[in-house]
Amino acid sequence: MPANATTAEIVAAMRSAQRIAVVAHVRPDGDAVGSVLGLVLSLRALGKDVIAILEDGVPGHLAFLPGTDTVVQPGTEPLGLDLAIALDTSTHERVGAKTKALLDAAPLLVNIDHHPTNPGYGQLNLIDADSPATGQIIYNLLSEHGLPIDDAVLQNLFVAISTDTGSFQFSNVNARTHRIVAEMIEAGLDTARLAQLVYQSYPLRRLELMRDMLNHMKFSADGRVLSWQLRRELMEAVGMQAGDTEGLIDILRMVDSVVGCVIFEDMPDGKVRVSARSKDSRLDVSVVCGHFGGGGHRMASGTRMKGPIEEAAQKFLEVLEHEVRRID
Amino acid sequence: MPANATTAEIVAAMRSAQRIAVVAHVRPDGDAVGSVLGLVLSLRALGKDVIAILEDGVPGHLAFLPGTDTVVQPGTEPLGLDLAIALDTSTHERVGAKTKALLDAAPLLVNIDHHPTNPGYGQLNLIDADSPATGQIIYNLLSEHGLPIDDAVLQNLFVAISTDTGSFQFSNVNARTHRIVAEMIEAGLDTARLAQLVYQSYPLRRLELMRDMLNHMKFSADGRVLSWQLRRELMEAVGMQAGDTEGLIDILRMVDSVVGCVIFEDMPDGKVRVSARSKDSRLDVSVVCGHFGGGGHRMASGTRMKGPIEEAAQKFLEVLEHEVRRID
Ligand SMILES: [Mn+2]
Ligand SMILES: [Mn+2]
Repeated sequence: MPANATTAEIVAAMRSAQRIAVVAHVRPDGDAVGSVLGLVLSLRALGKDVIAILEDGVPGHLAFLPGTDTVVQPGTEPLGLDLAIALDTSTHERVGAKTKALLDAAPLLVNIDHHPTNPGYGQLNLIDADSPATGQIIYNLLSEHGLPIDDAVLQNLFVAISTDTGSFQFSNVNARTHRIVAEMIEAGLDTARLAQLVYQSYPLRRLELMRDMLNHMKFSADGRVLSWQLRRELMEAVGMQAGDTEGLIDILRMVDSVVGCVIFEDMPDGKVRVSARSKDSRLDVSVVCGHFGGGGHRMASGTRMKGPIEEAAQKFLEVLEHEVRRID
Repeated sequence: MPANATTAEIVAAMRSAQRIAVVAHVRPDGDAVGSVLGLVLSLRALGKDVIAILEDGVPGHLAFLPGTDTVVQPGTEPLGLDLAIALDTSTHERVGAKTKALLDAAPLLVNIDHHPTNPGYGQLNLIDADSPATGQIIYNLLSEHGLPIDDAVLQNLFVAISTDTGSFQFSNVNARTHRIVAEMIEAGLDTARLAQLVYQSYPLRRLELMRDMLNHMKFSADGRVLSWQLRRELMEAVGMQAGDTEGLIDILRMVDSVVGCVIFEDMPDGKVRVSARSKDSRLDVSVVCGHFGGGGHRMASGTRMKGPIEEAAQKFLEVLEHEVRRID
């Protein structure tokens, strides 16, 4: 991995550019959307001409964030960029194919991320694996260098940090994380309103998915594996949209006997998306996903498999259960 | 309400006493257990002879907290106290009848709480309605006056604060709350481990309760009211224990159309416990609960009603729906 640039070098690159694109990864989560818009709104307040690009757009449950109405999905028209900035994206490709084509025309690529596996694909890189969220890196960057921070910027960066830490519950949280939120509250940010919008405002169809999960989830390996198949018919029946399933796997993970849990999900292309979680550091779910061509982190991994979903589940669970038995 | 004592007066009372009882309210939640044990362990480290009393004992899901093995339920034997301290308990009676009888023999009662309705029933009172948790008041007290704070104290006070703020999501959270947690992490506290124990380790029977709730919850008032009846038969079928229902109402509150939600619960004495939540500051659920002899906060209230549960629900919902229609 190339050495990190200094934050001063990165801010200098932002200040000397005029036409800037800021992007994040496909299937954007709260950290991706919040980091992009936090930085975009600050740079716009600085007078820059900034375009926010997300290959898959903004998921509906995050549409309340200020600035989401200015996010565009990539076209094919060249953008005439002075600078491209990729946030929260562990590999260059994960910005999405169309977005990558647009960025490749920019004279300079800045890569800011907190994924430890990020290879440093930018000309200027700022990879801080100790930050629980890219939003925390952006907040530090803006506040350290006196870039504009208003309430709209804070809303986006708070949601970035809150969602990537599971509302401050994950092991990536550090003292700085809480000090940042204290500063945000002192600056007048209404964090409770945002938490309500993020965590307590779900469409009924989300509870319908949850209900199906609780009615049809399956234990195996003596209660240590818990899995659920999210089938096309259910998606259609409830009118599922992007973001509806976020966090559902955490409910499976809650059961005290469980060490590994999995959600299998029918994809539009006939494939099956697999999301797996481990609750025991001796169980490495990235090994199981790797067996099927996927990967990720030790405690959280994913892959895609050939359908139908029932067969994919059977094959995946066989390998997972084998790994679970190995930790006895 | 009588004026608050200074924290110096309260600490002086603690320092000059030798035999001290610390208590909290019946059906103790995370703030009650965590505040009691945080203070108890600090006072014991100071060389005091401290008895921790909870009328209903420690609920199973909080038994991991250090010191819970020393918590006793009240007997009838006099305790020979120099000082009694009630924490997180909005009325004198809510410590429980047996506990109250023991406390009444103490020459001095200190009352530390964050409920705004606390009438100040102690000889020394410290009511801070701006604190999201009694645990935050205790942390401030200990750190301000240099009382012992070790990891076991911090574990208890963190769980007190985390649970009473819904993992930092509620509107009672302030900048000081986050600064305290930053200090705790800097002192070496593993907050992620505690969050996992509190939020991600539930017995399967909790998911069975959740499943029943999602299968049998009822909408009314055009989707703006959502309620569920937790019946005796279900409790027996799943082997329900204290603490199993904690947070279930937050799932009802998630639905975006809902402004008020209620759980009705069969009690051993044939009465029905009612827990109500508002999501809209114009809807005051304490008014609805007050109509049936209960009370609490504007956004979170409760009461007890005569059974059977079906009739209690019908009567309560009638009044709640009327209040909901008033905010149109
Ligand atoms: Mn992230
Ligand atoms: Mn409390």
